[in-house]
Amino acid sequence: MTIDAAYYCGNKTFRVETVEAQPPAAGEVQIDVAYCGICGTDLHVYLGHMDARVGDHRVIGHEMSGTIAAVGDGVTDVSVGQTVVVRPLDHCGVCPACKAGHIHICHNLKFLGLDTDGAFQGKWNVPAHTVHVLPDGTRLDHAALVEPISVACHDVRRARVAKGDDVLVIGGGPIGMLVALVARQAGANVSISEINENRIALAREYGLTAYNARDVDVAAEVNKATGDKGADVVFEVSGTQPGVDLMTEVAATRARICMVAIHAQKPQIDLFRFFWRELEMVGARVYEAADYEQAIELMSSNALGVERLITDVKALSDIGDAFRGLTENPASMKTLINLNPETVN
Amino acid sequence: MTIDAAYYCGNKTFRVETVEAQPPAAGEVQIDVAYCGICGTDLHVYLGHMDARVGDHRVIGHEMSGTIAAVGDGVTDVSVGQTVVVRPLDHCGVCPACKAGHIHICHNLKFLGLDTDGAFQGKWNVPAHTVHVLPDGTRLDHAALVEPISVACHDVRRARVAKGDDVLVIGGGPIGMLVALVARQAGANVSISEINENRIALAREYGLTAYNARDVDVAAEVNKATGDKGADVVFEVSGTQPGVDLMTEVAATRARICMVAIHAQKPQIDLFRFFWRELEMVGARVYEAADYEQAIELMSSNALGVERLITDVKALSDIGDAFRGLTENPASMKTLINLNPETVN
Repeated sequence: MTIDAAYYCGNKTFRVETVEAQPPAAGEVQIDVAYCGICGTDLHVYLGHMDARVGDHRVIGHEMSGTIAAVGDGVTDVSVGQTVVVRPLDHCGVCPACKAGHIHICHNLKFLGLDTDGAFQGKWNVPAHTVHVLPDGTRLDHAALVEPISVACHDVRRARVAKGDDVLVIGGGPIGMLVALVARQAGANVSISEINENRIALAREYGLTAYNARDVDVAAEVNKATGDKGADVVFEVSGTQPGVDLMTEVAATRARICMVAIHAQKPQIDLFRFFWRELEMVGARVYEAADYEQAIELMSSNALGVERLITDVKALSDIGDAFRGLTENPASMKTLINLNPETVN
Repeated sequence: MTIDAAYYCGNKTFRVETVEAQPPAAGEVQIDVAYCGICGTDLHVYLGHMDARVGDHRVIGHEMSGTIAAVGDGVTDVSVGQTVVVRPLDHCGVCPACKAGHIHICHNLKFLGLDTDGAFQGKWNVPAHTVHVLPDGTRLDHAALVEPISVACHDVRRARVAKGDDVLVIGGGPIGMLVALVARQAGANVSISEINENRIALAREYGLTAYNARDVDVAAEVNKATGDKGADVVFEVSGTQPGVDLMTEVAATRARICMVAIHAQKPQIDLFRFFWRELEMVGARVYEAADYEQAIELMSSNALGVERLITDVKALSDIGDAFRGLTENPASMKTLINLNPETVN
């Protein structure tokens, strides 16, 4: 049986090829992919930033949903016909991180869809241990957001957000917006700092307080709103020097700062403030199984209203346009690729 | 009754004046000061870095021990003749930090001996709530180290050091050395990174592993010693950019970094590593009452062997020489001023 697969070939190009589908190996599950969203990391691949890691003939994509089409030898806990999402992490089991139980940040982690072929193809074979089964009746377009929602659940858990906390999210892209929504679901009072007016408007549609950091002094606004206390929890999702400046300035005494952004450069940071206010900072990367279970619950109950985040749904043949659109359109948030057009939601 | 008091008058000078001792006000305790150590902060005052805060006619000093000479009205929980140390923090009780229970980092904190007159004088009046009574028979020279030991206890507690943890202390001055000793007392395997050969030799006398960061790649050494895991806990006590570089490089997955140093400049920091290894950083400033109680226990049982840290004991009339010695002699650690020469240890 043949399938269509989109290969990243370098220099902002994909080539859709029709290839023979491989049966699942022992311990693997074959999934008919329904939807696969385009992640910020996928955009980095498209822009050529990760060629050394992914090469020039790689199927990327990991924010997906689908239906089990076949199972390999030895797979007994899932079965054909179940709708699923994939937690795209494959760990080594023997490094110091794995031995300490932190398998999601294994020192030799393989990220499916970067270090192996991913989900921008009709059928995707993955290790059975990466599969999470969805509740009956789940919308598969919404389910493609389980992966980024899991990131947000992990971040909120790492930051120990509690009911009544004053939370500031710095950066309102798809991950920042989801962090804000999950933190609000945990009972926090959530604000967002952004500079993109489209994202500020979207945050306000969600009923969140949103500040344009170009127009107002965000730290002063948060202090005003909190009786000069500051934010109990700050999520730095901007990856910028002004974001790093704001995160320490706005933090309350003993606040938790969650480092979500990927800072490729080493920014300057106000370590005096860490000392003075006994601040805490925790890094947060990807997710653990419990985050996926929480995300599936939040998604299937539609507690977050994620449909507002889906800007576009496109066919695999339009994948080049879809990536270009995300780099050019400041109003876009999440674009899904529909891999199996017969999928009905 | 008159006492001698050493006034900092700016520009690396002290003037010893004979002044009339004031009786303790209501709620205060008057202490015959036995010994007062010279803290790194006192050195900053001496060097003129803190003139805006302390002015040019201030008695400084806070690392002290002594005997209660008198109590003011309303003081009932301590009595004349008890030997004591002072936790030199006076909080406002109404700011957001105090309301949250973090009175030691009150937004309006008065530090006794900087924001008020301190212990380089024969008799010192302090609020009764700052006094901790010592066990009978405590050596008052050792007791002058309770304040810096409390800093170390606070740091070790904030970093959640546990039995078996691999700990690296970056910077082996008096505070770094005490952090190392308290962490070892908590059951950790402790190493120190230093560049001063005198301090490296002292660390080795204490039986600690000590690396000269100018001679070896400390991160590589720690990785070699820990099966490529890295340090579970890192204390940054150096206040330098190389120290900040090392703290992220040497940290194991999910390690805790404790920010003890006062970084007046904003260093560059590897936030990618925070994300990638899910590192945690906690600021730690001064101490809480429980840290004082732990420090008194460690000091009075002499569990740490603090006598090696006392380089010199000098009379108040030699306070200028004592400060100059600390800035000029790379082998010096802690100098005590003996305020009451009749004090016998």
